Amino acid sequence: MLEISASDQYLTASADVGLLDIYDALPSGLYPPFPPVELPGGLGGLVSRGGFAQTFFFGAEVLGLTFTAPSGRQVVAGGRTVKNVQGYDLTRPFVGSFGALGHAETVTLRLRPGLASAHHSRPGTLEEAREDLMASRARFVWQDGDTLHACHFGHVREVQAAMEQFGGAPDLARPDHRAAFAGGMGVGEGGPLRDLRFGWQDGGAVPTMPALFARVAASL
Amino acid sequence: MLEISASDQYLTASADVGLLDIYDALPSGLYPPFPPVELPGGLGGLVSRGGFAQTFFFGAEVLGLTFTAPSGRQVVAGGRTVKNVQGYDLTRPFVGSFGALGHAETVTLRLRPGLASAHHSRPGTLEEAREDLMASRARFVWQDGDTLHACHFGHVREVQAAMEQFGGAPDLARPDHRAAFAGGMGVGEGGPLRDLRFGWQDGGAVPTMPALFARVAASL
Repeated sequence: MLEISASDQYLTASADVGLLDIYDALPSGLYPPFPPVELPGGLGGLVSRGGFAQTFFFGAEVLGLTFTAPSGRQVVAGGRTVKNVQGYDLTRPFVGSFGALGHAETVTLRLRPGLASAHHSRPGTLEEAREDLMASRARFVWQDGDTLHACHFGHVREVQAAMEQFGGAPDLARPDHRAAFAGGMGVGEGGPLRDLRFGWQDGGAVPTMPALFARVAASL
Repeated sequence: MLEISASDQYLTASADVGLLDIYDALPSGLYPPFPPVELPGGLGGLVSRGGFAQTFFFGAEVLGLTFTAPSGRQVVAGGRTVKNVQGYDLTRPFVGSFGALGHAETVTLRLRPGLASAHHSRPGTLEEAREDLMASRARFVWQDGDTLHACHFGHVREVQAAMEQFGGAPDLARPDHRAAFAGGMGVGEGGPLRDLRFGWQDGGAVPTMPALFARVAASL
């Protein structure tokens, strides 16, 4: 299931829909809060891990979701528009909970408009370029092996400025990284991908969960 | 306590600091996620109610907080920068929980830059102007009695455009609304203030809490 509302700028999709399937389905000029790569677990996996490569707060882009809690309870959280968020919010704690709150069934994402978009890559590592990249205007920045990537969408001049600042050359590839994470996309050093939050390695390791969050998870 | 980091664009303050005290303390060119009005409970009250008058997702502007849960437990949630949000997030459920998760001790808010700012008012009601205001570019829109207010900050031309669209005339007042909510700032019709989410009336009434959110609150 994949429904797109261009007028209200959101999409609702089954959690198992692939990230590149979403790119293929979107009308021109509307963009999702992730770069054009395929990652394990599709949209649901992405939300469970708290996004990939973004330089903004990913949680605000998830407008609502339905999920099955560890107890088996079906949970409906959030809404479909930015302006109807009214409080008592169970959407945001699910985002980046690495499975602790259960697994998503459907996800509603905010879409954002852009008159232009670009994806550049160049040799380099996040570690050596970290300060530059923290100040980057690009919406997405990540490292794949020894190559750095930056993506941006928005006004034409804003996209040009972000790409000039980053350097490199246009990259039209839309890589499928699923084979590199046969055991699950986990957090840790030495893996094939890295963004400003985490190194991502095969095996599905999750960050240490605070005890209080475990209490919340057990309550659902 | 009120600490401002202009370079990292955040502030951390005691929950009881007033909203206008924050305006007074900010350097020029940096703005908080609320308009220049005083409301009951200061910063902590504002966060507990999920903000006031914003046309954006207020939860993303609260980078972290410390709060006392109903159990008496002290909770430290979130961080101080946008890019260190790592998941297992207990900040966002607190925002707009109307006291169900306890009361805030300190709050860290994102600040945003603006080269210009403006506040206009004009006769009118949100009900009759709702469609126009939903499409408004103004960051804050609210109704006080029979008067509509709009505030914006950002680039000079963006501020001009938002105020031209809204109409009215510049309003330099920074009203203190606390006396109108002697029994607490609650949700409901017929009160003195209204924004795109709620009518706000004296007495401290809260929206109906979903049963599942009550389970989360009891777990903390």
